[in-house]
Amino acid sequence: MGKFITLEGIEGVGKTSNLRFIKELLEASGHDCVVTREPGGTNLGEALRGLLLSHSDENMSEDAELLLMFAARAEHLAKVILPALEKGQTVLCDRFTEATYAYQGGGRQLDTDSISDLEDWVQGELRPDMTIILDAPVEVGRARASSRSEPDRIEKEQDEFFQRVRAAYIDLAEHYPHRICLVDASVGIEEVQHQILEKLSEFDILEPQSLSDIEA
Amino acid sequence: MGKFITLEGIEGVGKTSNLRFIKELLEASGHDCVVTREPGGTNLGEALRGLLLSHSDENMSEDAELLLMFAARAEHLAKVILPALEKGQTVLCDRFTEATYAYQGGGRQLDTDSISDLEDWVQGELRPDMTIILDAPVEVGRARASSRSEPDRIEKEQDEFFQRVRAAYIDLAEHYPHRICLVDASVGIEEVQHQILEKLSEFDILEPQSLSDIEA
Repeated sequence: MGKFITLEGIEGVGKTSNLRFIKELLEASGHDCVVTREPGGTNLGEALRGLLLSHSDENMSEDAELLLMFAARAEHLAKVILPALEKGQTVLCDRFTEATYAYQGGGRQLDTDSISDLEDWVQGELRPDMTIILDAPVEVGRARASSRSEPDRIEKEQDEFFQRVRAAYIDLAEHYPHRICLVDASVGIEEVQHQILEKLSEFDILEPQSLSDIEA
Repeated sequence: MGKFITLEGIEGVGKTSNLRFIKELLEASGHDCVVTREPGGTNLGEALRGLLLSHSDENMSEDAELLLMFAARAEHLAKVILPALEKGQTVLCDRFTEATYAYQGGGRQLDTDSISDLEDWVQGELRPDMTIILDAPVEVGRARASSRSEPDRIEKEQDEFFQRVRAAYIDLAEHYPHRICLVDASVGIEEVQHQILEKLSEFDILEPQSLSDIEA
């Protein structure tokens, strides 16, 4: 089986550029990479992404929303992730179940036991081999993601939401240190990349040998 | 809480006309009825029904299909069924979870434990107060539902599928006799209606008093 690596974090922490960096690192050290994202990654997943967004005004029931997310995930696993892992490829996925814990569980305060039941139902024992959470204070993410104007009342509310999302991510890293790590994304890009390199080596995704090759 | 009644059966057993008959009976004896159906009954449910049908050619993964069905059901419960029951209305639903056991579990031979896990996740302890399964041999249903030409190879295959669906329905009625009953739908319409009347009384949905009123 190939390695399954997921990248997580709130808006503005540099997910896109670091995803590209990780892909290049892995390929430089001989990994055959499949890069994908959630929700999406399949025809059905993209259709459900559309449904989740277009129906957001109508106050879809929380249970229906969670089931749709996991339906998209089940399809993604069956059609993209598992076939690639079975071929020995390395799958690099932009967000996965940890995002459900962070956004729905933390941000929207849905019952995490319900999430964990669906995680077991859909994934069985499959968990990412390694999850990298890019962590930065919400203000840092916001400042990078959007304009720097003073937040209004609604943006303040969003801040509290993202504070809960961030706290849930930190909580996950504390509970599952063998498979989830935090990277401090509030520092400069080179320092972030250095941390990522070290973590990939620590989690045995990159050989220490290829690490020193890349650094040299 | 109002009563929750569901009507089940394979194609051609007379679900539509008997649904109307049951609604009239219930209203005649003072029930405030809400008639609905699955999949569907909500905007999201109808959209998912469309997805389930339009993607059927692409061989959607079995897990994704089951999760979508239960997502539609969760929305239906939250938006239509539970609010009506809480107002004391009687909900009469054309197909519900028993159809998932019969069609996906029996017909398509998906794992029934998986169905039962999702049933518990979505419904908690809620089960219909009464499920009426209109039962008839597959040939009888087919003859009523379609033309009477000789079945070709593919129709034969469908016969085996519907045999499994019917067997699963019979099995459910045997396992849950306190809430699920079979009605022999292979006989004439009046005799079918007489059985339905008796069952509604037996399951305490209609008072024996209103039964004799109606029969008189």
